Amino acid sequence: MKKQIVTISRQYGSGGRYIGKKLAEKLGVSCYDEELIDMVAKESGFAEEFIAEKGERITGSLLFNIASNLSYANNVFSGNGASLQDEIYFTQSRIIKDLAEKGPCVIVGRCADYVLREREDCLNVFIHADEESRIKRAVTYFGITEDDVPSAIKKKDKARYNHYKFYTDQEWGLAANYDLCLDSGELGIDGCVEIIAHVLEAIQ
Amino acid sequence: MKKQIVTISRQYGSGGRYIGKKLAEKLGVSCYDEELIDMVAKESGFAEEFIAEKGERITGSLLFNIASNLSYANNVFSGNGASLQDEIYFTQSRIIKDLAEKGPCVIVGRCADYVLREREDCLNVFIHADEESRIKRAVTYFGITEDDVPSAIKKKDKARYNHYKFYTDQEWGLAANYDLCLDSGELGIDGCVEIIAHVLEAIQ
Repeated sequence: MKKQIVTISRQYGSGGRYIGKKLAEKLGVSCYDEELIDMVAKESGFAEEFIAEKGERITGSLLFNIASNLSYANNVFSGNGASLQDEIYFTQSRIIKDLAEKGPCVIVGRCADYVLREREDCLNVFIHADEESRIKRAVTYFGITEDDVPSAIKKKDKARYNHYKFYTDQEWGLAANYDLCLDSGELGIDGCVEIIAHVLEAIQ
Repeated sequence: MKKQIVTISRQYGSGGRYIGKKLAEKLGVSCYDEELIDMVAKESGFAEEFIAEKGERITGSLLFNIASNLSYANNVFSGNGASLQDEIYFTQSRIIKDLAEKGPCVIVGRCADYVLREREDCLNVFIHADEESRIKRAVTYFGITEDDVPSAIKKKDKARYNHYKFYTDQEWGLAANYDLCLDSGELGIDGCVEIIAHVLEAIQ
């Protein structure tokens, strides 16, 4: 079946977000990444910073988990015992489903591959890269010092892994979860954009 | 760097072997799969059936592991305490390196991605598929009854996972180990062949 929605999951520093943006430009469709944060903020009432932090990551902080559950017990929006993180996940999942319903687009992160698993018109892509390439990107584009990047990579990937595992019960980064996985360090950012566009063309 | 060697790792029943064969035909290069068994047999002196069974699988059989180590203690070829399985692995790794040295080719299975990790001219591919497609292939091409396929898939994948983990210390099927991972159930056998050929063309 012709694919018209591309979901992009990515390792930190692999350029996945940028690949999504460039791909959307090439295809002439919308790319939803940080735009999703605004949408979730508007619908949920949570602060944008909070959504950016918790929208696709679960940290190992017991304190946060306890705090979010305690505070949620007093939250007027729900009495179902869900955490703040759950509320963000459910809201952004609803928004992702609505966006997919509207037509062709690229959606970066936020378990979109899983959220849209019942749609047959999604191409689910995972972008990764070798550590050297990721360090280089993080230093150049995220303003992190070279010494700090390895621990940032480990921490961010782990938080994304935990988040994906928690909400999908699947292993983040396992090839079998995606239609197409690409090494952007080996294939290049433009190479990945071109390959994804080619695959979209090839599947009818 | 231009890639001229393609290694293909694959889930059982995903059609990876057939994709390798068709890709090699399209590229006009040799495909090494079962041919490797003959070569290892000739070089090692082990029976072909034994190599086919142990060349890329580690079963959970404690009895086999004990037996292979005991018998190996009396093996005239080595006194280094390696098991029969180790001897097969080392021999086939040596053969894979020699084949890669000779020029462009496709190599299916046998940890070739890891064995050739120091070469920059390898494109490492992983082929997987949904269970329904794998069952269909296994019934059609391997003569297994539909009822027996799910356990065969589980058993063969686990044995390949264990083998890969044991010799490479990496997780088999994790996207980050490969340059390109493709879902043959979603993209089709011919689609995968075409996409790999396209990626080879795209990387210069």
